[in-house]
Amino acid sequence: MDAAEFRKRGKEMVDYVADYLEKIEKRQVFPDVEPGYLRPLIAQCAPQDPESFEDVFKDIEKIIMPGVTHWHSPYFFAYFPAASSFPALLADMLCGGIGCVGFSWAASPACTELETVMLDWLGKMVNLPEEFLAGKDGKGGGVIQGSASEATLIALLAARTKTIRQVQSEKPELTEAEIMGRLVAYASDQAHSSVERAALIGAVKIKNVPSDDTFSVCGSALKKVLDEDKAAGLIPFFFCATLGTTPCCSFDKLLELGPICNKENIWMHIDAAYAGSAFICPEFRHLLNGVEFADSFNFNPHKWLLVNFDCSAMWVKKRSDLIGAFKLEPLYLQHHHQESGLVTDYRHWQIPLGRRFRSLKLWFVLRMYGVKGLQEHIRKHIRLSHQFEHLVLQDERFEICAKVVLGLVCFRLKGSNELNEALLKSINDAKKIHLVPCHLREKFVLRFAICSRTVESTHIKFAWQHISQLATDLLKTWVQNHHQQ
Amino acid sequence: MDAAEFRKRGKEMVDYVADYLEKIEKRQVFPDVEPGYLRPLIAQCAPQDPESFEDVFKDIEKIIMPGVTHWHSPYFFAYFPAASSFPALLADMLCGGIGCVGFSWAASPACTELETVMLDWLGKMVNLPEEFLAGKDGKGGGVIQGSASEATLIALLAARTKTIRQVQSEKPELTEAEIMGRLVAYASDQAHSSVERAALIGAVKIKNVPSDDTFSVCGSALKKVLDEDKAAGLIPFFFCATLGTTPCCSFDKLLELGPICNKENIWMHIDAAYAGSAFICPEFRHLLNGVEFADSFNFNPHKWLLVNFDCSAMWVKKRSDLIGAFKLEPLYLQHHHQESGLVTDYRHWQIPLGRRFRSLKLWFVLRMYGVKGLQEHIRKHIRLSHQFEHLVLQDERFEICAKVVLGLVCFRLKGSNELNEALLKSINDAKKIHLVPCHLREKFVLRFAICSRTVESTHIKFAWQHISQLATDLLKTWVQNHHQQ
Repeated sequence: MDAAEFRKRGKEMVDYVADYLEKIEKRQVFPDVEPGYLRPLIAQCAPQDPESFEDVFKDIEKIIMPGVTHWHSPYFFAYFPAASSFPALLADMLCGGIGCVGFSWAASPACTELETVMLDWLGKMVNLPEEFLAGKDGKGGGVIQGSASEATLIALLAARTKTIRQVQSEKPELTEAEIMGRLVAYASDQAHSSVERAALIGAVKIKNVPSDDTFSVCGSALKKVLDEDKAAGLIPFFFCATLGTTPCCSFDKLLELGPICNKENIWMHIDAAYAGSAFICPEFRHLLNGVEFADSFNFNPHKWLLVNFDCSAMWVKKRSDLIGAFKLEPLYLQHHHQESGLVTDYRHWQIPLGRRFRSLKLWFVLRMYGVKGLQEHIRKHIRLSHQFEHLVLQDERFEICAKVVLGLVCFRLKGSNELNEALLKSINDAKKIHLVPCHLREKFVLRFAICSRTVESTHIKFAWQHISQLATDLLKTWVQNHHQQ
Repeated sequence: MDAAEFRKRGKEMVDYVADYLEKIEKRQVFPDVEPGYLRPLIAQCAPQDPESFEDVFKDIEKIIMPGVTHWHSPYFFAYFPAASSFPALLADMLCGGIGCVGFSWAASPACTELETVMLDWLGKMVNLPEEFLAGKDGKGGGVIQGSASEATLIALLAARTKTIRQVQSEKPELTEAEIMGRLVAYASDQAHSSVERAALIGAVKIKNVPSDDTFSVCGSALKKVLDEDKAAGLIPFFFCATLGTTPCCSFDKLLELGPICNKENIWMHIDAAYAGSAFICPEFRHLLNGVEFADSFNFNPHKWLLVNFDCSAMWVKKRSDLIGAFKLEPLYLQHHHQESGLVTDYRHWQIPLGRRFRSLKLWFVLRMYGVKGLQEHIRKHIRLSHQFEHLVLQDERFEICAKVVLGLVCFRLKGSNELNEALLKSINDAKKIHLVPCHLREKFVLRFAICSRTVESTHIKFAWQHISQLATDLLKTWVQNHHQQ
């Protein structure tokens, strides 16, 4: 395919994408396919000779679309949102076209410099303390990671290196392996599985801190486990606070936890993967109070800030902590500017070496929406979650299971877990809307997350009427079965 | 921006990208900017109100392009190639439009299933042993990682978990920390820095195995360090063999190394990040002989197989080894198909949780180029590297520093490192072409890598005449300075 054909096909693809997103509401949100559906539909090997674009293009509707879960359907209420917007799609086209690999400043200066400045813009939008910004000569700064999982891992690894060095300087008789064997990381029992995974990768112990009855970790809970562990000769070194937990969007109490971490010399990382985007609205910024005690902070514009995946924003107060944990400098990656204070080589800030020009997406989205446009998007979603909450509360058969703060509603039928599992199954089998569940303590709970950029009040009403009707149907047979037993 | 405006702007962006790539030859390959150039050109904060697409669009040429290193210029000969092709760009547009996050089968079945089948296609193209393919009920299979660094890390972590479990079952008196303290990973002294980094992250020792005078690791070199380390009570557990090293594209001797690793129960991972794409040509496939002894294998279609970044292909013989190292199952990620043998949840195969629909790029590229088209691309690059090699060899002032096997030529002026550093500086200061250096033993060497999809014989001739002229100019002043001293 030459440039001339790309002009033609590219425009057809633009129209296909526009059509897909404009009419996504008409597609069934969750596919009908069974595992293994795709393999029999395509050849066993790559073709020897080129096929035409038309041949490939027609297979999109024939082979791919029947197996797609439509994350941008206004009937998709599962997981958390995956961001999507037209400005981000345009930026991604440009990113692909430029196709540079920005592992160092010299590998493409614009790629590195735009990222640093965009992370400053974004940091200012959520009113991060100055120390987290790069500015012209700051010690902190931001970076785009691929995911919150990577941000958590990077933070844990930086904390591990820092702590090992400190302990070794104080107790030179200890080997690195001995110190490693005593390090402990902590996170809420509500924290995302990626925190446990980061500890697994980093080969350190991790302990759950019990959350309170609002599913938040408070200071006393952390202090209790720290005291026990220190008494047992362990070395607490890392705490991952969560703002907006995945099960129910609860918030750890930063203002209590931060001072404890600072006093105990524990790296505090804040994972606000979903919730972080809301902090651009002044009325929600208080949820981030206490960030001033943190060493690192992360949230995902690719979840809720209309920047297509991947774009996970991470800030650190001391970039030297990250770089110190990873810096390796083979000659083919050195360049003559690298000792300058103005130069950032992002390869030292992340797990992979290569990186795409992802800051273009932030640049396009922040400028074409403006802060106000993005605030509107967040506020609409939160309005809709409260609308759903009110509908649930008006139905005495149901209960709300956690405080609705942002765009997630946790709810269930009053009754057994089996009943709620049956309700979820009937919802997801009907495939008119799509939800996923969670456990809150011993309760099986349904999560209703406002996801799509285009979801409106009518979709919420439809979803509720549908759930309500399925509940009515279910309860009829359920009561009958119970009576028969 | 609504869908209607996206249709308009998207088409403008397609034309912009087509123009950029068609006329890239006219742009200076390496930018003139100094560190810090970008910040003064843009606002200090994100705008409150939306800006128009036109405003953003005109800033691309004004602010971004002056700072871009043009990786797809036919005058770019630095690092290794970054793949780019029109079919891949089209697929990426579709990937962005669908915008699903494919961490589990249920999160978007097509996303997972196409990936498994595409990795089988690609595995067959390089004639991987059957064990590495997923097929309908294989124990192995492939996955798309973001980078070779992640593939190496994942392999090392899987090997670490496997070895710890084995050692613990044989010697239950040892703690995990004690075992960790004795684990050793190995790689060539020519291996990529990401291998050392993987060991750093995984908190295990790593040792360089000395390469021979062709910069390859042979069996006896590995055996020697293994014997020493085992005698010292250490536990060798992982060897990363490199096919196509970054400095000079040398090849470790798999047929000698593989049987040693198998006998010693050491996980052998093969990093063929750059070279792997060449194995689709039968005449280069012999370089992969010995892969049958490996546990995992990785190469980057995003380097040399015309699939835009990111797309790093990794295969394992036993997928259970990867999954066993990482599997964590919170309820919100469970789905009712997951225990089926046909289902793959790729989140257990990688560091991040989220993942894009990257297999679309492979699907588009493999079909629209066909195996033959891709072989042609590889063969053209290798032809051009030999053309450059011959030009160098005809000039008695220069020497070739390592055998030219694929698309990389390592060369230098006969003489001191300082002289060659000066030559590289004059080349990169002139900015007509772009190269990076490497060290081969104590020698400072220039790397000439065939990179662009559109590079032709004329560009090679131009590059050589230019280098030759700069060498003449340099040698004149160099000799004068030497005489004066």
